[in-house]
Amino acid sequence: MDNKHLSVNNLIDFNQLSAEDWNMLCSLAGDIYKSPGDYADACRGKLMGTLFYEPSTRTQLSFQAAMLRLGGQVIGFSDPARSSVSKGESLADTIRIVSGYCDVVVTRTAFEGSALAASLYSGCPVINAGDGGHLHPTQTLTDLFTIHNLKGEPSGMSIGMCGDLLNGRTVHSLAGALSRYHGNTVYLISTPELRIPLWCQKMLVSGGNRVIETDDLEECLPILDVLYMTRIQKERFSSEEEYRRQAHVFRLDSDKLSSAKKDLIIMHPLPKVDEITPDVDNDRRAVYFYQARLGMFIRMALILKLTEKPYVPSPAKKAFSGTHRCKNPKCVVASEPYLPPMYRNERDETYCAYCDHRIG
Amino acid sequence: MDNKHLSVNNLIDFNQLSAEDWNMLCSLAGDIYKSPGDYADACRGKLMGTLFYEPSTRTQLSFQAAMLRLGGQVIGFSDPARSSVSKGESLADTIRIVSGYCDVVVTRTAFEGSALAASLYSGCPVINAGDGGHLHPTQTLTDLFTIHNLKGEPSGMSIGMCGDLLNGRTVHSLAGALSRYHGNTVYLISTPELRIPLWCQKMLVSGGNRVIETDDLEECLPILDVLYMTRIQKERFSSEEEYRRQAHVFRLDSDKLSSAKKDLIIMHPLPKVDEITPDVDNDRRAVYFYQARLGMFIRMALILKLTEKPYVPSPAKKAFSGTHRCKNPKCVVASEPYLPPMYRNERDETYCAYCDHRIG
Amino acid sequence: MDNKHLSVNNLIDFNQLSAEDWNMLCSLAGDIYKSPGDYADACRGKLMGTLFYEPSTRTQLSFQAAMLRLGGQVIGFSDPARSSVSKGESLADTIRIVSGYCDVVVTRTAFEGSALAASLYSGCPVINAGDGGHLHPTQTLTDLFTIHNLKGEPSGMSIGMCGDLLNGRTVHSLAGALSRYHGNTVYLISTPELRIPLWCQKMLVSGGNRVIETDDLEECLPILDVLYMTRIQKERFSSEEEYRRQAHVFRLDSDKLSSAKKDLIIMHPLPKVDEITPDVDNDRRAVYFYQARLGMFIRMALILKLTEKPYVPSPAKKAFSGTHRCKNPKCVVASEPYLPPMYRNERDETYCAYCDHRIG
Repeated sequence: MDNKHLSVNNLIDFNQLSAEDWNMLCSLAGDIYKSPGDYADACRGKLMGTLFYEPSTRTQLSFQAAMLRLGGQVIGFSDPARSSVSKGESLADTIRIVSGYCDVVVTRTAFEGSALAASLYSGCPVINAGDGGHLHPTQTLTDLFTIHNLKGEPSGMSIGMCGDLLNGRTVHSLAGALSRYHGNTVYLISTPELRIPLWCQKMLVSGGNRVIETDDLEECLPILDVLYMTRIQKERFSSEEEYRRQAHVFRLDSDKLSSAKKDLIIMHPLPKVDEITPDVDNDRRAVYFYQARLGMFIRMALILKLTEKPYVPSPAKKAFSGTHRCKNPKCVVASEPYLPPMYRNERDETYCAYCDHRIG
Repeated sequence: MDNKHLSVNNLIDFNQLSAEDWNMLCSLAGDIYKSPGDYADACRGKLMGTLFYEPSTRTQLSFQAAMLRLGGQVIGFSDPARSSVSKGESLADTIRIVSGYCDVVVTRTAFEGSALAASLYSGCPVINAGDGGHLHPTQTLTDLFTIHNLKGEPSGMSIGMCGDLLNGRTVHSLAGALSRYHGNTVYLISTPELRIPLWCQKMLVSGGNRVIETDDLEECLPILDVLYMTRIQKERFSSEEEYRRQAHVFRLDSDKLSSAKKDLIIMHPLPKVDEITPDVDNDRRAVYFYQARLGMFIRMALILKLTEKPYVPSPAKKAFSGTHRCKNPKCVVASEPYLPPMYRNERDETYCAYCDHRIG
Repeated sequence: MDNKHLSVNNLIDFNQLSAEDWNMLCSLAGDIYKSPGDYADACRGKLMGTLFYEPSTRTQLSFQAAMLRLGGQVIGFSDPARSSVSKGESLADTIRIVSGYCDVVVTRTAFEGSALAASLYSGCPVINAGDGGHLHPTQTLTDLFTIHNLKGEPSGMSIGMCGDLLNGRTVHSLAGALSRYHGNTVYLISTPELRIPLWCQKMLVSGGNRVIETDDLEECLPILDVLYMTRIQKERFSSEEEYRRQAHVFRLDSDKLSSAKKDLIIMHPLPKVDEITPDVDNDRRAVYFYQARLGMFIRMALILKLTEKPYVPSPAKKAFSGTHRCKNPKCVVASEPYLPPMYRNERDETYCAYCDHRIG
């Protein structure tokens, strides 16, 4: 175990992490993977609270397994119907109470920006395990760690991202993470309707990567070193017919795979449904279950680093002067009205610091 | 750790505890608070069962955190809809089975007297974590420990209790606990409709305290050393209008607080809703989150003391001779008909030993 | 702890266990019961996943208690409504992900054969905690261990099984287990409608036991060394009236018990409802709560033996050549269509290897 600390006290957004933070986590996770026994008591006596206002069994199990394998313990809830949690009680109050019992708190909520909101009132580190459709930084940690682990640092690689690139939170986050690297070619494989947002493209390019948009998975496959598959949801299409026609094009099966490189890796944030046929599961290039397993190790590294240093609370930043107010109905300020308005300015625009929506 | 044992095998009712019991718990909890590391293995190898027939997330998390921080482990359920638990099976059978796995059992149920009923069949200590609207002794432990911890033994203090004093279970229990002390002045601050029951007043006075009833929070505030706030539920009022008028009077805000003593402590059993405005949370006198945290430590002391001595089962006491039968529809005997009728006599009256309702 | 390993990698079906396996488990469970402290760290650092697609609180608590008392840890889910688990995700995928976090996985599902199906994809041992109405091998371990523990090896005993012998999964399994012993007389006590299936009778006889069918519990009672009671469900009868008449005959009460042997043991898989009156609970011969407690110890032995050796995955067996396909609507192949068809031949008949239904 090295003696350096992370530069952050919470993990709300992957972009908070410095390059040094990321290297530290990545290297620690690799070490835990190799020698789990050395870390079996690393969090002995520490307690994690998992506050899952939305059910997300896989993510919750991964966090629980991570903490327990460090010798720590877990309390929490996971049931949205368990109304007694939030019955009239503010998120701030729940966080203040539970963080009083715990050494680290993991939150999953339906509202965007709620992890940041939680961190304003917490007495211990907060990890964002998903705040609505906004951020899911430990999935990005998992994805990037998998690439590092199997292919090394992304540089000069051909990376395909396939499926619903418009709505896929994990794709956007991974694009953001990849913008830290350069010299890669990123193939964005989707229908015209489900293209990646412009700001994601810009991020990739600004980092020094080439971006190619396409709607032909088969054509790309032979070139790729990494293929990141995502789910296409039926609801996104104009008709059932249209869905069936398109879904077929973006479905990965053994046939299509026959033309791919021998050392391709096929990733997926899971759960998968129809976009990968079961025969692919047995292909050695399909690493998504291994990826899920690596997610436990990178979470172990994160929990360990966040709980090993004294916690410094993050006070609310001064609000941007002005009369702006975030109008995003899914923003946490809509459900928790006592929150101090917090903004940031970027290239003459004002954004809500909670949900990153533009204001004004 | 001292070597004395509690005089009780279960904690069903705060009033079971002798003065010596209370001092032992209070002093042990203080010691755990100061040196938690000394107790990190105190319950190693022991198992707690949390049988929550009613959801009560905060209480359950507090108990779980307490046991885990003692190095013990926890099993249990928390879902009233999880009907498989009680599907046809009697409370007695469930307790007999689960206590066969565990070293201590914590119960939360909708029926009054069910913790006492459970203790008749349990093979290990039973802790009452709330039996309907009847008792909630670990909340009282928490409240009293908070006062002791921050203000010392209650003597010569001015203590305000504000809100719905008629229906507030925690208020009644705290009044009972305070009756062990004397020389205090207790201000009962509520509307005429929500006044404290006469038997609570009598208890306070019999202990040697002065009681003053009032409906003016603002007038009292400058005098108080302790202010115990509780929730006022809208349903208790004749109309929405009446509620809004009254709620305003009993709402604590920074304005009202400006006249209070510098060393006042503001307590609340939580969750709070509207009765305290969010600006008060940042006032140093608002100790309710700290109070919730102390609740974990007093529960640690309780669990530790109850599990460190050999368990002696509590056989059902002989029933009071006569043909009386408890008619309280919320009494546990209504839902568990096999229970032996148990009564106690007090000043020529007969009371159900389960739910404390008068019989006959 | 002895150094021998079980001959199996999973526990799907009690009949998989060799006589040596059973002796090993039985003897280990007895040793744990006597000296639990010696095993308090036997699974330290190991993690159990409890995947309960159907709620079964008692079974789940028993497994959890078993693993925690071995010093291991537990993650899992227990809520059928928690649809996020199975939302579109195949059983195979869920098992692959969760077994990537865990050292042993316990499954409870509504579909017959799903534990076998799970074992085809798991990266760690699978324990069947009930697959629909099909198998529940750890209940059988519990029952047999109880008889061993209290009466010794079943030989020359009079064993009564009473209640719904037609539908009772635990009765069928116990009959199968008893077929390994000989020289016993088994009294099958039920109404004509609820008689034990012929194949169960045949198993008992083939092992070298005598079988006597009867509908008279009272007449049998004085002879019995072991009485295994089961629940009679109202729905099985032609009318409410018929149910009430019959239920009375097969209800065990203190009166009937007065003629029984002093060293009879009365067993029940629990939960019980009306088939045993509460007064019997206090009879020393009623051992069903003790039986539930022993269930924890035999599960401890099972978990310990399955996790102490390297796991060898079980590949799907070659399918029986032919065009057969299992038509049992409750078979796991009906809900998980990607599963490879697996059959076995027995005396010129073909059976589905998942659900044991005859095919063709």
